[in-house]
Order: sequence, then C-alpha cells, then structure tokens
Amino acid sequence: MKKEQRIEYPSSHKIYVKGEIHDIKVGMRLVNLTDTVHIADGEKSFEKNLPVTIYDTSGPYSDKKVAIDITKGLPRLRQEWIEERNDTEQPDDFSSAYAIARRGDESLDGIRFPVVHKPRRAKEGRPVSQMYYARQGIVTPEMEYVAIRENQRCEEPGIRTHITPEFVRRELAAGRAIIPANINHPEAEPMIIGTNFRVKINTNIGNSSLMSGIDEEVEKAIWSCKWGGDTIMDLSTGRCIHETREWIIRNSPVPVGTVPLYQTLEKLNGKIEDLDWEIYRDTLIEQCEQGVDYFTIHAGLLCSHLPLLKGRTTGIVSRGGSIIANWMAKRGKENLFYTHFEDICRILKQYDVAVSLGDGLRPGCIGDANDAGQFAELSVLGRLAKIAWEHHVQVLIEGPGHVPMHKIAVNMDRQLAECHGAPFYTLGPLATDIAPGYDHITSAIGAAQIAWYGTAMICYVTPKEHLGLPDKEDVRAGVVAYKIAAHAADIAKGHPGAQLRDDALSKARFDFRWKDQFALSLDPERALEYYKAGRLGDDSGHCTMCGPHFCAMKLTKELNNCIK
Amino acid sequence: MKKEQRIEYPSSHKIYVKGEIHDIKVGMRLVNLTDTVHIADGEKSFEKNLPVTIYDTSGPYSDKKVAIDITKGLPRLRQEWIEERNDTEQPDDFSSAYAIARRGDESLDGIRFPVVHKPRRAKEGRPVSQMYYARQGIVTPEMEYVAIRENQRCEEPGIRTHITPEFVRRELAAGRAIIPANINHPEAEPMIIGTNFRVKINTNIGNSSLMSGIDEEVEKAIWSCKWGGDTIMDLSTGRCIHETREWIIRNSPVPVGTVPLYQTLEKLNGKIEDLDWEIYRDTLIEQCEQGVDYFTIHAGLLCSHLPLLKGRTTGIVSRGGSIIANWMAKRGKENLFYTHFEDICRILKQYDVAVSLGDGLRPGCIGDANDAGQFAELSVLGRLAKIAWEHHVQVLIEGPGHVPMHKIAVNMDRQLAECHGAPFYTLGPLATDIAPGYDHITSAIGAAQIAWYGTAMICYVTPKEHLGLPDKEDVRAGVVAYKIAAHAADIAKGHPGAQLRDDALSKARFDFRWKDQFALSLDPERALEYYKAGRLGDDSGHCTMCGPHFCAMKLTKELNNCIK
Repeated sequence: MKKEQRIEYPSSHKIYVKGEIHDIKVGMRLVNLTDTVHIADGEKSFEKNLPVTIYDTSGPYSDKKVAIDITKGLPRLRQEWIEERNDTEQPDDFSSAYAIARRGDESLDGIRFPVVHKPRRAKEGRPVSQMYYARQGIVTPEMEYVAIRENQRCEEPGIRTHITPEFVRRELAAGRAIIPANINHPEAEPMIIGTNFRVKINTNIGNSSLMSGIDEEVEKAIWSCKWGGDTIMDLSTGRCIHETREWIIRNSPVPVGTVPLYQTLEKLNGKIEDLDWEIYRDTLIEQCEQGVDYFTIHAGLLCSHLPLLKGRTTGIVSRGGSIIANWMAKRGKENLFYTHFEDICRILKQYDVAVSLGDGLRPGCIGDANDAGQFAELSVLGRLAKIAWEHHVQVLIEGPGHVPMHKIAVNMDRQLAECHGAPFYTLGPLATDIAPGYDHITSAIGAAQIAWYGTAMICYVTPKEHLGLPDKEDVRAGVVAYKIAAHAADIAKGHPGAQLRDDALSKARFDFRWKDQFALSLDPERALEYYKAGRLGDDSGHCTMCGPHFCAMKLTKELNNCIK
Repeated sequence: MKKEQRIEYPSSHKIYVKGEIHDIKVGMRLVNLTDTVHIADGEKSFEKNLPVTIYDTSGPYSDKKVAIDITKGLPRLRQEWIEERNDTEQPDDFSSAYAIARRGDESLDGIRFPVVHKPRRAKEGRPVSQMYYARQGIVTPEMEYVAIRENQRCEEPGIRTHITPEFVRRELAAGRAIIPANINHPEAEPMIIGTNFRVKINTNIGNSSLMSGIDEEVEKAIWSCKWGGDTIMDLSTGRCIHETREWIIRNSPVPVGTVPLYQTLEKLNGKIEDLDWEIYRDTLIEQCEQGVDYFTIHAGLLCSHLPLLKGRTTGIVSRGGSIIANWMAKRGKENLFYTHFEDICRILKQYDVAVSLGDGLRPGCIGDANDAGQFAELSVLGRLAKIAWEHHVQVLIEGPGHVPMHKIAVNMDRQLAECHGAPFYTLGPLATDIAPGYDHITSAIGAAQIAWYGTAMICYVTPKEHLGLPDKEDVRAGVVAYKIAAHAADIAKGHPGAQLRDDALSKARFDFRWKDQFALSLDPERALEYYKAGRLGDDSGHCTMCGPHFCAMKLTKELNNCIK
C-alpha cells in the first residue's frame, strides 16, 4: 500500500473559496493561462487570458499542503458541522452484529483499516437528512458548499448563476436534488445531484469473487476522482467486502454508494432463498455506520411484474433485480424491500443515507427497451419516492440501460411524470448493442442525450462492459467518456458558465498555446502524449495535423492581417 | 509492400446475391450462428439461430477465392457495365499535363503503381453520371447493386424494405442520394449516400509533409474497409501525392474522395497567390482520370462572407476554406471555384465525379457554431447544388464541425431547407471542445444525433484529431466510433432491418454464446481480447463481469425455470 497518493494537474493549483454564511472553504482547481501574443507590423503585443476555475473532484489529493496518508484516511471535513448541529450521538459500539463479529476476527487484522472511528447516528426521533434541514428552512454548510462549488467562480462579466444557497435549499426541500452525505462519511466534500445543477457522473468500482484486492480498489477510487468522477459505487461481491469498503470510504473525497444486497448475499454464500429482513437490516446498519452515502435498493420490482417479462430477449440484467426476482419466485412472497420499505427509511434517516431506487427491470438490450415491465416498475419507484420523502430520506431514481435514441426522450418524460421531480440517475443508456469493447462510446451517446433532457447523474460504462471487470485504464476511459457526455449536456442545457472552459480551450487552440490547451482539457496527459507522437520539430506556428503549409488556423491569422 | 493483403471476420463467409435485372452479384458477409441450448428437466434441446447478413465494405479482400495482388490492383468490377453503356471513349493519352509529366519522370519509377490503365471519359456531349441515367429512367447495374446491398437480405419474416432499384433511381434523379462512381474507378463496389439509406461513414487518410509513406496509406485504406468505412478521403498534402493516390484507388473497393486544392497547392509549393484556374483545372482532370469518385470543392465561400467572421474564436478551420479565403484576400478577387463552377461541372460530368460542396466556414469551436458566416455559406451551397444538377453532376453538401447538442437540429433543418434535399455530409459535429485525445467520442455524440435527424454520411474523427495524424489504431478507433454513431442513427430512423444485428447479438449474449456475440460485434478482435483478459477459468454459464454467484442473466434463466 502506497501511503501517500497525490493527484496533479498541469498549470493548476488548488484555490479555496470562502463561504459567506458558514465558516467553510470550497476547493477548486484554478488553471493559469499564458498570454495571447499578437503580432502586427512586426510588433508583438500581449493579451492576458483570465485563469479558468474548474469544478474539482480530487479533494485533498490535489492540495500539496494537506498531509495524505492512506492508512489514516482523509481529513474529516464535515465532522464539526455535524457535531454543531447537536442532533446526533455516538453509541459506544457498532449496532450491527456483523460489524462486531468482523472486529473480533483476528485473521482480518492484517487487512483492516488501522483507525477506528466511533459511528454516529441521529438522536432518537431526530431526522438528520439534508432534506429535513432544507424543509425546516435551514441552510446548512453543506448547502452553501455546493452552491459555491456549482458556481465555479464564473468571472466572465455578464455570467451570473442562479445557484445560491437558498436555491439549493429549495431544490433539496422539493426533492428535486440530493446531497448524499452520510454523517459517518465526514471525509466527503458535499456535492449535489439534481436536474438544475451540473450533470454528475458515477464510477463503479469493486472487486468480484474473480479478482482484485483492496489496494487496487482504493487506487481506482482515487483515480476516478482524478479524472472527474463525482461519486463512486463500490459494487464488491468478493471477499472482505466490509474491510475493502472501510478503506475506500475513509479515503474517498466523494460520496460512496453501494448495493447492500450484494454483501448480504455474500454473507449467505450466495443462497438467495436464505435472504430475509434480519440479515439485510443488519447489513444496512453495518454500511450506514461505515459511512456509505447512498444505497441502491431494488424495491420497485413486484411479483406482478414478472409475467411482463415474457418475450424479453435478455430478461433481467440488473444483478439486484435478478436476485430479488429469484427470491420472490422461490419464496412465493412479495419483494421484501417493498414490504419493508418504511423500515428501511427509518434506518436511512438516522444517518442521512440517500436511497437510489434501483431499476431491476431496466432493459438489457435495445429490443427490450421501454417495455411494460420497465415502465410498471418506474411507476412503483415514483410511489416509493413519496414514502421516502415522508421520512425525509433523499431519493434518486435509477434508469436504463439499453435504449435506442428515438426511445430515450420518453424515458425522461415518464420519469418526470411519475417520480415527482426526483433526480434521475441512468446507466448510459447504450444506443446500440453491437459494440462490445466500445460500450463507453455506445453509452456516452445515449447518456449525453438523456442528461441534456434532464437526467441528473449518469453512471459510467467502461470499455470492458459486458466483457470483464475494468482495470485502471478502463476506469479512466469510462470516466472521461462520461465527463464528455455530462459536459456536453451542461452546455446544451445552458448551465451557466459551462461553455467558458470550451471557449478558453478553443482560444488557446487558435493561438497555438498548446500547454494551455492541454491544461484545460479533460485528460491533459493523453492529449500531450498524442501531440508528442505526431510532433516532428518546431510547430509553434501551425497545428500538428496539417503541417506548416496547410494549417487553416495559421492561414486565418494571415488572412486577418490581410483584410485589416 | 506486402502484396497479398486479406481481411478476415470470425464465423463469417462471403456470399453473393445475384441481381434480377442485371448480371451482377453483390458481396455480403454472412455470419453463421450456433444453436441456443435449452435445458428443461435435465433435457437439452436445441434452437437454430438464423445466420445474419451484414453490409460488407471489405470488397474482394474478404473473399478467399479472389486473387489479391496489391501491385496489380483489385478486379475491375464495373468495367463491363461502363463499356456496355457505350457512351465513353478512351483517348490515347492522359489529358492532364501534370499526369504526362509525372509519367515521364524516371526518378518516380521506383514508387509508381506498376499497371497503367488508359483513362476513360464521356463521349462528346454525353453526360455519364448516375444522376443522368436515373433522370432518363434507366436503372443501371450500379443502382440495382446498391438496392440489393442496402436490403442486407433481411430474412426475418415481416421485415421487407422499400429499397428497390426503382426507389434508388428515383432518389438519384431527385438529387436526394448519390452513387459516387467515377468511370475510372471500376474497382469500387457501388454504394449509395442519401437520407433514405443506411448512414455512411467516411474515413480520412493521407500523408502530410510531416510523415507517412505509400505502403502505410494503402494499408490504412484496406484497414478502414475492414472496420466498415464506406468511403475514403485521401487528404494527402505531402510528396508524391499523384503516385500515392494511384496505389490507393487501384486497391480501394470503396469510393475515394479528395480535396483537389491540396495537391494544386503542393504543385505551387504552397504559394497561395499563384493559384489560378489553369493549374486547378489540370489537377481536376488529372484526378478525374485517375478515378477519384468525389471532390470536395470550397465554392461557396465568397468575399462577402469574410467580414462575417469577425469575432470568431477560431476563425476558419477548414484547410480548403482558409486557403481560398487567403487567395481571395490576396488577389482581391471572388472565389475562383465559385466563378468557375460551371467549368468545374463540365469536367466532372465527363467522368461522373460527384462534387462535395465544402463548408469552408464550418465552426471550429462550439462558440462559433451556427453563426452568420456558416449559414451564409450554406445558402450559397444550396444555389450551387442546383447548378451542378443542371449538369447532372451528383452533389453532397458538407456540414459542421463543432456544434453543441442544442444547436445541432437547426443545422439539419436549414440544410434541408436551403439545399433542396441534397445529401448532407458532416464532420462530427463535436459536442464539446474540451476533450482533445477523445474527439472520436465528442464527435460520435454529435454525429449520432445529426445522422438520426437525416445526415446521409458522417466523416469520422480519430482520437488524434487536433493533435496529429492518425495511425492504424487511431483509424480503427475512429471507424468503430462512427460505425456506432451511424448504426445508432439507422436504428433511431427505423431503417429496415437495422436492429436485427442488435437483436441477434443480444440473444447470443443472453445465451452465453460468446463466439456468436463477438462475431456479430463491430470489432470482434477487441471484444475477444477484453473477454480473455477478464477470464479466469470456466465461465460458460455466467458472464465475465459478475462472476458465478451474481450473474443476472444466469439468475434470469433460473427464474424462468422457476415461474414456469
């Protein structure tokens, strides 16, 4: 385990913007640019280019002044804020039987995260969710934090965004946005997911029974943050899920989501029929106390939906969905996540864990898109959202999947109609099935569109989708493809300031300010690598594609001098 | 130079579908599939899966029965058809002074293509374009060929396409589609570009003064055909353009396009002000006689447009556009391609070379998208299309470029309104500027959308765009990204039979018929490579992502048995 991991960006340094309501400071990346050089009549003149502020998911890893030690975890940014609210308490021990048992297992000492933090939960009868505070009219530090963060310090005159702390509060109160922020994950920097904010992307990591260890997963998590992942889902299904997750959460500056069912089933050695409320409940509490920020729960898939799946080409492709469907069929009972949904909410509200209502019936191929099963489940998710909101539990609604372009818009329309404005969180969708090995692209096409239509968060897909688990390079490819989709959607939605970065990069491109162009790009390292590969000699005055005679941008400059 | 180059696809063989009107045979790729195995009550039963026919751009390279020798060139498929029309003649010598001079230059003997074919041109006063024939009510072998090809032998009951030879003829006559088919490129298999047909993709190759030789360019051309490129543009600007192009055309089973201005300027050592009609005219004839199938000509950029460019961030990014704009500014004259447009048409009609009306003012960044300059030029292109059609010259209209998603649709709308239904041929568009190194993705997002809206051909972008010239792996990445965009658009447009391939692949996926899944995918080699990387032991009964316990598709099968 390499203890000190760092994230670096070229021409950049970390800045902090102070709050006006609360004593907070919001980290951002500032990219410094060089001057534009104008040459007229043999005389040089210089034009300053304003630095560009970039929304920063890298947390303390990109701040050289912060000591980083993976074995100690990140600074606990939100701890004071949480304590000051005085609505939580710290029991003497874990409340989950499993967590207590794991702690007592000496064989795990070698892989255990070295520092133990006492878990925190709400005082009796006190909801502690950001939604609850918002409904009380309280602007929390978290709310002010995301308001500042979303604004990205647009210094361009004339661009002023509507994203004030009060706007954030109202969006949260209405359920149109969430701040996933478990009180046991104070290391995470607050971020917001909602249609009226920057489109966010989620990165899936996690080991399976087949491969990958703790080191690798922690590295992947930090790697995801480097490239711009807004949240991480730990989808581990292998050994030592509990311990792996602890390492990830303690070192993650972004919210962490899970599908608690996966670990529950590992505890049952995969025996689906043994699943019951007690063991699931213990798993929820275990993960709540560790600091998971949102849970995917497949509570909307009902017995009555199963006959609707006849004739599907790929049946159920959601892991969680297929597990609970099998449980229902084997036990002859209604979905226990549905029947226990209020019990679940009562647990989640004590930690401010958001629920991401899973779409167990999402289509696994474009031929199955938008069928009766998919939409029947969506309808149930809308009803469950209302129940969660009664408990002040924050809600995301999950969406497809594989959907051809002409069938994407209706997914957004129906989600809006049936789910009362709760933020939509989609996987892709993939616009065609015929490109395994390139599904980061097939899905970025669909994701850009659905995000433009209003989806709040898109779940990345890597080139290995359908084929194997992603390695680090796959994570990078997936994150960058999804940053492209999300950013393209921000621009198309008219998100204030989104286009500043494009404009600055394009100006740098036209000026042959290569260094600035790369610093502003989503993957400066890759851009530089390709540039170097094509470079032969001096190319300061023309682009590397055209060569010196035929560079259009060089010729345009001559033209500008010509027609002056 | 490797003389015998081959293209192979797994589980596939070449089939030929015979014509009903003409004595022609149309090559296609047939993918054979294995059976689906059903297990019920311990008994196995087998379900046949129909083979899938795939539109095939690989020409004779994938037919083991055809002798391939790069130094001799491909079989001259269309030669007889052209001869039988009896409207062309073969002059004793080349008509281009440059071509004659090159032939006499002994220093070129070492790199010259070994076989010389006498050029062919129309008899005096006889237009020989497919548009002309179509307007005469003639269904040529080329028209029947593309009709068969587009149908892809949809064997699924109930799917019958409207693409008859007569439909093709009518689309050509109306100018809504083109078959680029120079009478001097009889090696090319006929293909059609139009809104009512499969979306096509173009691949740019070509050397620059900076790098790459003849071998490499020929290899890239064949490589593009392997992955599914429908046409190739040779954008060479380096040395020996004439000789390089000869090798490419003689070995290309797909139409070849060029920007004749590039070579013209090479002849002038880059001195833009020396450009005149005579040298451009000689270059057009030189390339017509070699067999170039379509020319990009930037005839729509006028003096009156130049003031409209003030305030653009990236000025003119079209190489051709910037050259002619500089010429106009330096010479103080109107665009010579515009003033000589009818002269150009008179040349092109003698060889059936299509004109692709270049968008010299396409935006080079999203900030410049849809500005007055861009649309002013588009309007001129519409007028020029009508003039070309008077000469029976087939026309494409080129389009942008860099356009954010919310501004894409209006590009298509205006093109339709101003260009009288001539097929649109766009570069991307790129939906954001901030991802150099990933512009195959930024642009596939835009290309999928504009193709869905009606664009007939999309010009690929590789990961090296803006950074350097593509190598073979970049060509592959670019072609596959664009095949995805084109296919996603075909599905969204409801192109008959397009979804068959997705459905067959998804069924194979659900059945764990990995081999079939890969054979049906756009890049079987990449899919297999990723699959192998993730594979540990036997995974015949579950997918490689989830592992044996949590495979959703495995669980669905169990579920199906459960609820029977």
